[in-house]
Amino acid sequence: MSRPDKTPAERPRGFIDRKGAEIAAEARVVEAAGAVFERWGFERLETPAFEFTEALGKFLPDEDRPNAGVFSLQDDDERWLSLRYDLTAPLARFVAENFQDLPRPFRRWQTGPVWRNEKPGPGRFRQFTQCDADAVGAPGPAADAEMIAMGAEAMAAIGIPAGGFQMRASTRKLLNGVLDAIGLDSARGQLIVLRAIDKLDRLGPKGVTLLLGEGRKDESGDFTKGAGLDAKAIDRVMSFVTVETGTRQETLAALEAVVGDTEQGKAGIAELAAIDDVLTALKVGDDQARFDPSVVRGLEYYTGAVYEAELTLSAGDGEDAGRFGSVGGGGRYDDLLTRFRGEQVPATGFSIGVSRLVTALAAIEQGAEAGPAKPVVVMAMDKVATVNEFELAAELRAAGIPAEVYLGGSGVRAQFKYADKRGAPIAVMCGQDERERGIVTIKDLDLGAEVAKNIEDNEAWRQANPAQFEAPREELVAAVRSVLDREFEK
Amino acid sequence: MSRPDKTPAERPRGFIDRKGAEIAAEARVVEAAGAVFERWGFERLETPAFEFTEALGKFLPDEDRPNAGVFSLQDDDERWLSLRYDLTAPLARFVAENFQDLPRPFRRWQTGPVWRNEKPGPGRFRQFTQCDADAVGAPGPAADAEMIAMGAEAMAAIGIPAGGFQMRASTRKLLNGVLDAIGLDSARGQLIVLRAIDKLDRLGPKGVTLLLGEGRKDESGDFTKGAGLDAKAIDRVMSFVTVETGTRQETLAALEAVVGDTEQGKAGIAELAAIDDVLTALKVGDDQARFDPSVVRGLEYYTGAVYEAELTLSAGDGEDAGRFGSVGGGGRYDDLLTRFRGEQVPATGFSIGVSRLVTALAAIEQGAEAGPAKPVVVMAMDKVATVNEFELAAELRAAGIPAEVYLGGSGVRAQFKYADKRGAPIAVMCGQDERERGIVTIKDLDLGAEVAKNIEDNEAWRQANPAQFEAPREELVAAVRSVLDREFEK
Repeated sequence: MSRPDKTPAERPRGFIDRKGAEIAAEARVVEAAGAVFERWGFERLETPAFEFTEALGKFLPDEDRPNAGVFSLQDDDERWLSLRYDLTAPLARFVAENFQDLPRPFRRWQTGPVWRNEKPGPGRFRQFTQCDADAVGAPGPAADAEMIAMGAEAMAAIGIPAGGFQMRASTRKLLNGVLDAIGLDSARGQLIVLRAIDKLDRLGPKGVTLLLGEGRKDESGDFTKGAGLDAKAIDRVMSFVTVETGTRQETLAALEAVVGDTEQGKAGIAELAAIDDVLTALKVGDDQARFDPSVVRGLEYYTGAVYEAELTLSAGDGEDAGRFGSVGGGGRYDDLLTRFRGEQVPATGFSIGVSRLVTALAAIEQGAEAGPAKPVVVMAMDKVATVNEFELAAELRAAGIPAEVYLGGSGVRAQFKYADKRGAPIAVMCGQDERERGIVTIKDLDLGAEVAKNIEDNEAWRQANPAQFEAPREELVAAVRSVLDREFEK
Repeated sequence: MSRPDKTPAERPRGFIDRKGAEIAAEARVVEAAGAVFERWGFERLETPAFEFTEALGKFLPDEDRPNAGVFSLQDDDERWLSLRYDLTAPLARFVAENFQDLPRPFRRWQTGPVWRNEKPGPGRFRQFTQCDADAVGAPGPAADAEMIAMGAEAMAAIGIPAGGFQMRASTRKLLNGVLDAIGLDSARGQLIVLRAIDKLDRLGPKGVTLLLGEGRKDESGDFTKGAGLDAKAIDRVMSFVTVETGTRQETLAALEAVVGDTEQGKAGIAELAAIDDVLTALKVGDDQARFDPSVVRGLEYYTGAVYEAELTLSAGDGEDAGRFGSVGGGGRYDDLLTRFRGEQVPATGFSIGVSRLVTALAAIEQGAEAGPAKPVVVMAMDKVATVNEFELAAELRAAGIPAEVYLGGSGVRAQFKYADKRGAPIAVMCGQDERERGIVTIKDLDLGAEVAKNIEDNEAWRQANPAQFEAPREELVAAVRSVLDREFEK
């Protein structure tokens, strides 16, 4: 089949093509979230795909060719450019570049593709979509509370039913209180503890306990070295992350008992109490947002409140029920601009995992209506379409019904195959015979496929032609609409 | 100001940041065009930013580091990847990769950014948006006619008023007839003639005549070598491209006289006549689509019909009136898949120059309504916002009015500056005094700014406070809406 002089038609690994229904599902999520963000006064921004590698901050080139995690290339003037790996780093550059001109707080939302030069895997791509809202120059817990409330409103607007999601929030200060209490002050040790806690959902208390101590061997036999805490310290950390939670007030009381004896712990509880006040003012109930000390977020850069949007809905029933977990999150990161400005600027932000949310929505059949309507196919009865057939299609489109004339140049059999591949609901036929009689023949393709399943005798089926009927030429639109309406009702 | 250890906050040249109104204007164009494409049975597709450099076809690496016109980098497995420079090359790869599974004709539309690694200039960026519709596997002039009709429908849907645009079409066969007649059969010579004709709009008949002959010296003194045709041949080409045009039928008759004596010329006229039949069936009038032999499109790869969407509207009056010219175009290119499949697959397609169209729309003030509504700012009267202030903002949002609480931590004067920078129409104030009296104070910021212009005495203005009024707390939404409605009426 393939000759050596032909170019192979293939995609680079980790990149996908997407079609109508999937693009539409993602667009609906972004549109719904964006409308909420704009109602809260967040202005849309779009930055280019490329930034100076140096401006992205996290992945500085330490070799001749920087490529750890990012796609980079050298510009004509020898400077390194990288494709953005998230929407936060470009925001930092944008705010620093326009610092004097921007209102502060600067509230912006942005959506678009980001690129990661990583090893692709199942459901793990090298290009995917993010949708973020951030407030830069907004100190204080009220700004964090707004993000949590807005996150809840966005989830609802996207179409997650009430009770199907929950915002979970905490603050790094609480954890810092615990770390103070156990005397762990090395940055490296603290990071190991942070990452261990972040795995609670996946490994359970037993796995996290191992990671806080000597370490843990996974199923494949790989050993992860632990934080090396002693039994008493481990106990303290575990009693913190597994504290019994309830309403926000109840959780605050329980946390008071566990971390209320340290300065940082006290500060953390005061912060959450302030967040609770604003959430209550914004009418965000305990069912929509709760406090959970096991929410820590794996990234080092958060400096205060941290929050996640969790889907509590599941797909399917019983033991096989799939839980989706976190579909978005964020927190306070007051060092966003430090490398550009040499000083802290308070900031807090929230990012929606759009692709994950779309997948989840599809699985719980929220996205089932999906995709734009498929076109009616007007058949070219003489292989090459006639003027009359173009008029029929134009009439349908003018009535708002997607329609097209078959233009492939093949016979009627191939045209039915085409209509089938297109997922067309209806074929319209108007050959010379129909034209002379002043009628059109309309075939309900979905009904036809259904009926065909139950008829064994090919000849009998052909004669009965159950899903096909004639209509006066001038009643084309009404006749097509009657079939479409019937489909819709099913 | 800037210390050496700070990262400079800057963008790579040729890339821009865009804000709300501009993003919204582009989204409106794409949405309107996409809705038309889907009504005509075109399915949306999204391909990734990266393709194998080899698959992009036109810019093969002829050196160690390919970078002529495209952004390229080497993947971990040493293969070269490039960012797409248009949406047609990825379509070719997609169709070739899924050839057996796709319905044929395959009708798809796509929009998204493309990247060109070229020298940026005024209005010339290294990342910009395209929006394309193509039919692959559709032979015959009817498919081209559909593209022209659909292009006209898209222009109208985008908001260009009737009479403000025109589709101009021709076919390469006509030109081939002329080239046959003058005996020019070298591919190189033909390309020079093609490019000369393509400059008719810009250089006029005199300039093109020079380029068809010895060559032309431009204002800067640069000399462009011409096609070297003799006077008789030049005359024949020029009488072809400047043929008197009128209705499609009239133009066909005039062309018959100029190129009807060659095989290719005859074939071209028959093709345009077939296109005219379909356009007439689709009710596309002579005012919306005309034939014009000077439309040739500069690219070598077109093999039949070529068409352009021209904005005939202008910005401003008299001699300064800016004409926008072509805002989209396309044609038949039957060799799209040849390099992948070793055989021709007939295809025809249309690309809208989105950025150019958005610029034009803005200039003719069609895009003036633009941008999402600006938020009402609820002031934080005690610097740090109170629970009450969050409730006020939530109430406005629940009524569908964009609103935010000021969260920057600065005093009232800074908050007014903030509201001004945000373009906020209204500030709502509700400090302790207002709370005790059960009222809110509402300030019409646009009216305030207007009145302030006419009052010189600062003190008098402050006492009059003309644009500010009190409303009962429970009438907040109605009071805010009354001001917004007044703004809207202006």
